[in-house]
Amino acid sequence: MSETHPIEKVTIIGSGPAGWTAAIYAARANLNPLVFPGRATGKDLLPGGQLMLTTEVENYPGFPSGITGPDMMQDFAKQALRFGTRVVTDDGIQTNEQVNKDAPLYTPFQNVKSVDLSKRPFTIVGDNGVEVKSHAVIIATGAKANWLGQENELRLAQSGGGVSACAVCDGALPMFRDAELAVIGGGDSAVEEASYLTKFASKVYMIVRRDVLRASKIMADRAMNNPKIEVLWNTKVADVLGDKVITGVTLQDAKTDEQRELPLTGLFMALGHTPITEFLNGQLDLDDAGYIKLKDPYRSTSNIEGVFVAGDVADHVYRQAITAAGMGCKAAIDAERWLAEQGID
Amino acid sequence: MSETHPIEKVTIIGSGPAGWTAAIYAARANLNPLVFPGRATGKDLLPGGQLMLTTEVENYPGFPSGITGPDMMQDFAKQALRFGTRVVTDDGIQTNEQVNKDAPLYTPFQNVKSVDLSKRPFTIVGDNGVEVKSHAVIIATGAKANWLGQENELRLAQSGGGVSACAVCDGALPMFRDAELAVIGGGDSAVEEASYLTKFASKVYMIVRRDVLRASKIMADRAMNNPKIEVLWNTKVADVLGDKVITGVTLQDAKTDEQRELPLTGLFMALGHTPITEFLNGQLDLDDAGYIKLKDPYRSTSNIEGVFVAGDVADHVYRQAITAAGMGCKAAIDAERWLAEQGID
Repeated sequence: MSETHPIEKVTIIGSGPAGWTAAIYAARANLNPLVFPGRATGKDLLPGGQLMLTTEVENYPGFPSGITGPDMMQDFAKQALRFGTRVVTDDGIQTNEQVNKDAPLYTPFQNVKSVDLSKRPFTIVGDNGVEVKSHAVIIATGAKANWLGQENELRLAQSGGGVSACAVCDGALPMFRDAELAVIGGGDSAVEEASYLTKFASKVYMIVRRDVLRASKIMADRAMNNPKIEVLWNTKVADVLGDKVITGVTLQDAKTDEQRELPLTGLFMALGHTPITEFLNGQLDLDDAGYIKLKDPYRSTSNIEGVFVAGDVADHVYRQAITAAGMGCKAAIDAERWLAEQGID
Repeated sequence: MSETHPIEKVTIIGSGPAGWTAAIYAARANLNPLVFPGRATGKDLLPGGQLMLTTEVENYPGFPSGITGPDMMQDFAKQALRFGTRVVTDDGIQTNEQVNKDAPLYTPFQNVKSVDLSKRPFTIVGDNGVEVKSHAVIIATGAKANWLGQENELRLAQSGGGVSACAVCDGALPMFRDAELAVIGGGDSAVEEASYLTKFASKVYMIVRRDVLRASKIMADRAMNNPKIEVLWNTKVADVLGDKVITGVTLQDAKTDEQRELPLTGLFMALGHTPITEFLNGQLDLDDAGYIKLKDPYRSTSNIEGVFVAGDVADHVYRQAITAAGMGCKAAIDAERWLAEQGID
């Protein structure tokens, strides 16, 4: 199937906090934005982004009693759709009138297969062949936390069962107070997350596959000097245990393969993140860690004029819903001003 | 009155979206933050910030049906207080248990009189003499839109009567569709706001005091070439007319003082903003426009180690609740990591 449409003013790829916020601002600027939200069954973009995998969100400002991640993202989508955002679905381009009203994120959306940013208007191709031409593009595809990949691990992460990939997001939850927790990973961010969790936990194990931390000397020292942190060297996690909530992990000695159980109340992944940039096929400058480089770090500009960037795909530092949403707003405002300069409005 | 307290870990000055978001993140990181929210009667800091002067907010993501500015900021405050943020009031330092539960922003808060950032711990002095020592400080004092200063203008701005200082925030409201609007100002941002409003309005007058635009050539050309924009040269606004909503303005010729009425449905100020930095007494580097300079524009660092900055006081580009909140989050995370490096946690 191949369709051609009039040239879009701005097309947004991704539908986490950054993508929908860009859409809200672009729609309210009368740019009639088009969003490729991604596909739940795809290997990359999850409609609604990482927050669809969380339960309670307590740190997004504006919700004093908290809100669930999926409810929040449905609200983001509803707000963007209400102001005239259109979305690419398996049935073509649809408006607010045509999507699932109660839960727009459960509409069967299109993923992006490829983009051609080499000439303007840019071309975006969906995974069922739909082809869109667009004057401006906002990339807000996010990053995926790296997981062990075990079934029980992912199930407990999605059900709020004490498994998480974000200590800053979830560390303050009551279930982790004065409890024994573990962090998997040996890099700087693993030490950062472990140190952070000692504010709440009675003890934090760092489960490290090798006999040395990949973390920098200063960070490694911080872990070593923290009386609440115990490093388990040469150790892998063979299994995550627990039914409704995690009860522990099965540890495996990386050298002897010997196994033992470690009771735990919480397990935090610090195995890094993978920004979703494969579909770009090298057309935008990336940094050493694979994140899209901002041309001006205060703004949302990339190395290609007319291509703007927002959210975790360009942020390996903060990775919060509120920071991603802020970047989405910047991207829409930058795109609107750039389009006005080009005489497109 | 002078009191001494134990040294605070982090003290936040300001209580708009940036300040409360910093407080939410700092509180959840167990830093037990202290906020100087400002004082409603003060000349500078308004508790809750600029949004307390707005009615409907439609572009803050997460509220598909909109929310009023004051309700939203009360919710921000409640969320920060819920997680243990303390506030400086006329009765001293108070907690969630002691403030007005339904509307915490109506508590009689303290403003900041002065700060001493020359040595650590830093010193913050409130306007009734309360003195706080703090290891880290987050400055989130915002910026004030410049207004004409007429009583009817401010009254209509606060009641949602069609007078605004932010076209991006309010331009898309239904009341302004196909209507005749005016922008007061002659700089780049006045042209930007006028151009933006032509997306919605049938006509936009630019009311310019002199016989030339202060805007750059490229921006001035844009105004001149836009058939919906008419520039009224050598013109001042002598009065803003209307009871519940604006009905027009009384224009006055800057040379002859001759007056005439211009019927209008909306009036937008583009007279610039004044960042609230006077209390800093020159202790932080400012840019040419008076905004605090970020040491690293992607982060929240200032030129003084341990002093972090968030929101409109460091942003003359975007000035949105969501961007300010994103910066507040960054400032709290940066402060938390810096405190951990100092061994303070």
